[in-house]
Amino acid sequence: MRVALGLEYRGTAYCGWQSQPSACGVQDHLENAISAFLVSPIRVVCAGRTDTGVHARAQVVHLDTPIDRAESAWVRGVNALLPADIRVLWARRFPMVDGGDDTQQFHARYSARSRSYQYLLLNDSVSPGLQHGSVGWFPVPLDVSAMHIAAQRVIGEHDFSAFRSAECQAKSPVKTMYEASVTQRGAVVVFDFRASAFLHHMVRNVVGSLVYVGAARQDAAWFENVLASKDRSRGAPTFAPDGLYLSAVEYDAAWNVPPFRPRALP
Amino acid sequence: MRVALGLEYRGTAYCGWQSQPSACGVQDHLENAISAFLVSPIRVVCAGRTDTGVHARAQVVHLDTPIDRAESAWVRGVNALLPADIRVLWARRFPMVDGGDDTQQFHARYSARSRSYQYLLLNDSVSPGLQHGSVGWFPVPLDVSAMHIAAQRVIGEHDFSAFRSAECQAKSPVKTMYEASVTQRGAVVVFDFRASAFLHHMVRNVVGSLVYVGAARQDAAWFENVLASKDRSRGAPTFAPDGLYLSAVEYDAAWNVPPFRPRALP
Repeated sequence: MRVALGLEYRGTAYCGWQSQPSACGVQDHLENAISAFLVSPIRVVCAGRTDTGVHARAQVVHLDTPIDRAESAWVRGVNALLPADIRVLWARRFPMVDGGDDTQQFHARYSARSRSYQYLLLNDSVSPGLQHGSVGWFPVPLDVSAMHIAAQRVIGEHDFSAFRSAECQAKSPVKTMYEASVTQRGAVVVFDFRASAFLHHMVRNVVGSLVYVGAARQDAAWFENVLASKDRSRGAPTFAPDGLYLSAVEYDAAWNVPPFRPRALP
Repeated sequence: MRVALGLEYRGTAYCGWQSQPSACGVQDHLENAISAFLVSPIRVVCAGRTDTGVHARAQVVHLDTPIDRAESAWVRGVNALLPADIRVLWARRFPMVDGGDDTQQFHARYSARSRSYQYLLLNDSVSPGLQHGSVGWFPVPLDVSAMHIAAQRVIGEHDFSAFRSAECQAKSPVKTMYEASVTQRGAVVVFDFRASAFLHHMVRNVVGSLVYVGAARQDAAWFENVLASKDRSRGAPTFAPDGLYLSAVEYDAAWNVPPFRPRALP
């Protein structure tokens, strides 16, 4: 039996998604909870690894186990064993395909057609207090329209090396960006990106360089030149993780993966 | 010089507003920061005391000091000394009125005409993960319209003893409720109340009893009878603090108190 789980978590207390020797990763807590639920050691595979302090509204994982449990039991049982800031929102059982390879079997990572990330940035002279850890911050008024226009330059297939961290383990820096938008919602600037996949620190590096454009420190042509240069040293510094959310993972409809219910204020 | 400060804070890490021997109150952290800023010990008076785990978007305090600092220096200087989840959003200096009593002098508590509290309740089968600590939770679908209709019964002047905690130190249980509404925003039920003042646990007790109505465990007539009984044992249990926000404090326009800027997603 292959089981997919849909998760949300607040990343503030964790050292990112990935399992660590000190067991501070979200993955460590999830694997411990599932292993206790099944009374059997389990490893999981996720759709998108998130960094320290980064949140997820819509993380997807899968795992294999010979043990069969009802989908509702997966949700209730694993949640009872997880820290309160990590929640399983749905479970889906996929019977194993006999002799099937990974293209015939649902795979949280390889079956994903795209990932979406959202960055929330408080644009106010005073840093976030109530929303500390939940939003990024920039004190100088930003030109949201200029950032939106510049952001369109990343759409399409590009070598994103200019926005890739030195520790990135991806095989290729070439990814396809399907959507990029920058909008204003009250005092919060909302950056939305949907791509085939993302490199390490890619959203935070793109946001950092777009903020240079929004603050009129650079223009859209500079932003395009940074992307074209494939040179990380040309762009702005990496933005803080606080405002970053893994907001969606898209699969072929044929997999019939449950939708994530809206859970926050719209 | 009397100085008023506008604050926001996330209450999760604190044992409420009020100063405690263990110094775990928001007031302790604020007084320490201001005392360090002025290099002089300072006590503050607040508009509305919040409980453990309760948040504030719009707390107002005042303090008296012979030391004169620019309003922008108050904001920057005190914020530099506060924990990151407590922020000063504005400062206003009021010259002392010679021989004036508290009616002639701005007073964070006594000059306040009304306070507003908002309660955010996630209505979903799974408890909040990403929003853990920021919203309350009820797993059974709620009838928001039935709760809104019942909530209208608290409008006007009432003896709110039925919704008052045993530890409440208010002189009188009679308060005037100006507004009460219950609305749906996505998966979140939003309760808004504006009153002359609130008793200890009053919003959380009203929300608890309204949720009984929303879950069809009781009806609006029962809710009205609970209020009329003045008997705390008749109502539902106190709801969790997580979703409660001090959202506004209203003063006469003559005081010219700065508005709180919107700082969250609208």
